[in-house]
Amino acid sequence: MPTNAPQLVVRCLMMSIDGFAAGLNQRLEQPFGDATEGFTDWMFETPSGRKMLGIEGGAEDADNTDDPYVAHSFDNVGAVILGRNMFTASRGPWTDDGWTGWWGDNPPYHAPTFVLTHHERESIPMEGGTTFHFATAGIDDALARAFAAADGKDVRLIGGAETVRQYLAAELVDTLHVVMVPMLIGRGERIFPESAPPPGYRCTEHIATPNVVHLRFERR
Amino acid sequence: MPTNAPQLVVRCLMMSIDGFAAGLNQRLEQPFGDATEGFTDWMFETPSGRKMLGIEGGAEDADNTDDPYVAHSFDNVGAVILGRNMFTASRGPWTDDGWTGWWGDNPPYHAPTFVLTHHERESIPMEGGTTFHFATAGIDDALARAFAAADGKDVRLIGGAETVRQYLAAELVDTLHVVMVPMLIGRGERIFPESAPPPGYRCTEHIATPNVVHLRFERR
Repeated sequence: MPTNAPQLVVRCLMMSIDGFAAGLNQRLEQPFGDATEGFTDWMFETPSGRKMLGIEGGAEDADNTDDPYVAHSFDNVGAVILGRNMFTASRGPWTDDGWTGWWGDNPPYHAPTFVLTHHERESIPMEGGTTFHFATAGIDDALARAFAAADGKDVRLIGGAETVRQYLAAELVDTLHVVMVPMLIGRGERIFPESAPPPGYRCTEHIATPNVVHLRFERR
Repeated sequence: MPTNAPQLVVRCLMMSIDGFAAGLNQRLEQPFGDATEGFTDWMFETPSGRKMLGIEGGAEDADNTDDPYVAHSFDNVGAVILGRNMFTASRGPWTDDGWTGWWGDNPPYHAPTFVLTHHERESIPMEGGTTFHFATAGIDDALARAFAAADGKDVRLIGGAETVRQYLAAELVDTLHVVMVPMLIGRGERIFPESAPPPGYRCTEHIATPNVVHLRFERR
């Protein structure tokens, strides 16, 4: 792929040391599921994370070494892909429940956002440039639509774990940035597909900060 | 447990980013199995690792930041526990094949070394203070025998993955030091038991060096 070709990127994907992006029993009150207390603390300690999540106040910490990863996580991103389970806690056919995601009227994506689902639904325009489109024809089709919508920019795959696993197994992800949170979750959703041989990625960077370890992978 | 009580320690246990201590098809010619090329390189770059493995020559590297972990991995160790599969590639009842481990006449343990097995066998005294004992009554009994033999010092559990997983699941390990090698193995033997809730360990240290990430866990 030429150097400046648009890429499919994963950034700031959180993983426990034992390999889980989420525990069992993900639910509205505990979106990451069981045994994930403290999993997102590192993000709440970054000024950019607080800003992105709409959290007022909290001491500014210009020295937070995780902040640049969060601050730059949407750089050159022209479209976004989400798994259904990241959009909602509901499953199965869409109901008329008025749900438009976890993020309020102005979601943090600010770009066309493709939600993978088996069930058709009309697109939902939101404030701030986000429009949710529902992609029912599989991961390749969703990626093609996202690249078209990104108009020369990159596509960011946000998650969840199952969606990332599918794109990694198909080796469609160009670069992957994992934030390894130093804790154990025990059981749940893994990021990396169990496959022999492993998917063709090499880890090109491993950097510890006070709270986490940043791991960067590139496709071979 | 009082501060100075003997502990069960795991040190320098290698794990890939996707959680494997070994790949599929472990065999004589490739003891760590498939897709593990480069897995042990970090160890061969440490002066202490080369010395322990009996490798002559190679540039001394006083600045190797992994070396202290290897150099101190047997500090205060009075006895050792090994899984059967770390002692030999053979399986099932012992045959009269003369096998006395991978390590030649003078194994690197220099202490009573308990090999977990379902099959009885006479103890084997080796040079340099190592005696292999074969422990057939389960992990608790092997640990009790090892603590007795250690005579007030610590017991080091070397591996392999299945044995560590059993001791972790039973929360019998006091401290665990994992060397995370930044690569993917894809399928094989995991270190951490899949359990909900996860075993009661917290990660108290995560330190990146040029080659690996050192992770230290203590029992809660």
